[in-house]
Amino acid sequence: MKVFTKKLTFYMGKGHVVRDITKEIQAVVDEAEIKNGQVTVQAGRSVCIITTLEYEPGCLHDLEVALEKIAPKDAYYEHSKRWNDENGHAHIRSAIVGPSQTFVVMNGKLCLEPWQQIIFGDYCPDEHPEWEVYCSVIGE
Amino acid sequence: MKVFTKKLTFYMGKGHVVRDITKEIQAVVDEAEIKNGQVTVQAGRSVCIITTLEYEPGCLHDLEVALEKIAPKDAYYEHSKRWNDENGHAHIRSAIVGPSQTFVVMNGKLCLEPWQQIIFGDYCPDEHPEWEVYCSVIGE
Amino acid sequence: MKVFTKKLTFYMGKGHVVRDITKEIQAVVDEAEIKNGQVTVQAGRSVCIITTLEYEPGCLHDLEVALEKIAPKDAYYEHSKRWNDENGHAHIRSAIVGPSQTFVVMNGKLCLEPWQQIIFGDYCPDEHPEWEVYCSVIGE
Repeated sequence: MKVFTKKLTFYMGKGHVVRDITKEIQAVVDEAEIKNGQVTVQAGRSVCIITTLEYEPGCLHDLEVALEKIAPKDAYYEHSKRWNDENGHAHIRSAIVGPSQTFVVMNGKLCLEPWQQIIFGDYCPDEHPEWEVYCSVIGE
Repeated sequence: MKVFTKKLTFYMGKGHVVRDITKEIQAVVDEAEIKNGQVTVQAGRSVCIITTLEYEPGCLHDLEVALEKIAPKDAYYEHSKRWNDENGHAHIRSAIVGPSQTFVVMNGKLCLEPWQQIIFGDYCPDEHPEWEVYCSVIGE
Repeated sequence: MKVFTKKLTFYMGKGHVVRDITKEIQAVVDEAEIKNGQVTVQAGRSVCIITTLEYEPGCLHDLEVALEKIAPKDAYYEHSKRWNDENGHAHIRSAIVGPSQTFVVMNGKLCLEPWQQIIFGDYCPDEHPEWEVYCSVIGE
């Protein structure tokens, strides 16, 4: 039994970016040299989400439509008013979708189907030099 | 300390099925012979969800009403248009609710109240022979 | 490698309370004396949520606005009709946001930014003496 933790950083560009990070997470599992166990993937920012999606342009569009219903970009937010930072929708999307997911690892591989990618979504409207995703792999 | 992983398969019938899998997950914890630790439960399909709910017909109805607001079955989806497979809503529900949850285990038991069941929801409109749920139990 | 589990109890008052529990979870990590690994935080009630949010009054207000869209407090619920207990919205909010999150621990600290707090939300309209949050810390 062992544990392996790693901080990944991604340059996401100017906000509202959803990236497929499956390959990067599988690489962390490989580096950990753990064959059976699990990997937790956690966003280190409260304007980001971690979940799974079939990563293709149609689903990305449809996810944005659904999140616009829950927390529209251009709605009024008490949070944005307070700080004048226009990221109120990003905080709410992050809280509802969630900042972390844990994936089972068997035979050294993430237990995902071919149409299921791990996505890292950044809904902050500003540009940032890097965003943190933390991983912990536990197993043997 | 030990780790135990297991793949469960469920025959879900013709889509839009939400099943109480608490007993099956407790059985995995029992088989792992782990008294204190945790179990991760992860859907292996991007049209499925793992979460908790009081599993009774009223809540099942109410959950469907809420998910219809977020991602209605009969809405237009770019994804469905692309593949002509009519499961756009299923991908979005899965992404927003999430494919995994991790539960704490104490004294060999899942730390759930009697009105809190682990549910596995399948929103794919088609019939499939089996759906995969992966578990990892870690502890001692 | 070791595992440490703990049950926390919170007096939440009369429902619809969202509390910042970051300090309490960091204290569990400290007590576990684990430097690298992860901590799972799981609500033991199906009317509660665990997620992250920038914990300030604006975001708390905005989260309530969004959850009112998904599962309004005063809507009709089949569940509430069945039991006459008026907590239908609470079950649905819990199912969609989720009862658990897992956080990575590095150098003994939760991997959160300063504007990202762990929140425990209780949407039950009644008053309860205590609510359970279960933690498991795994690592070394």
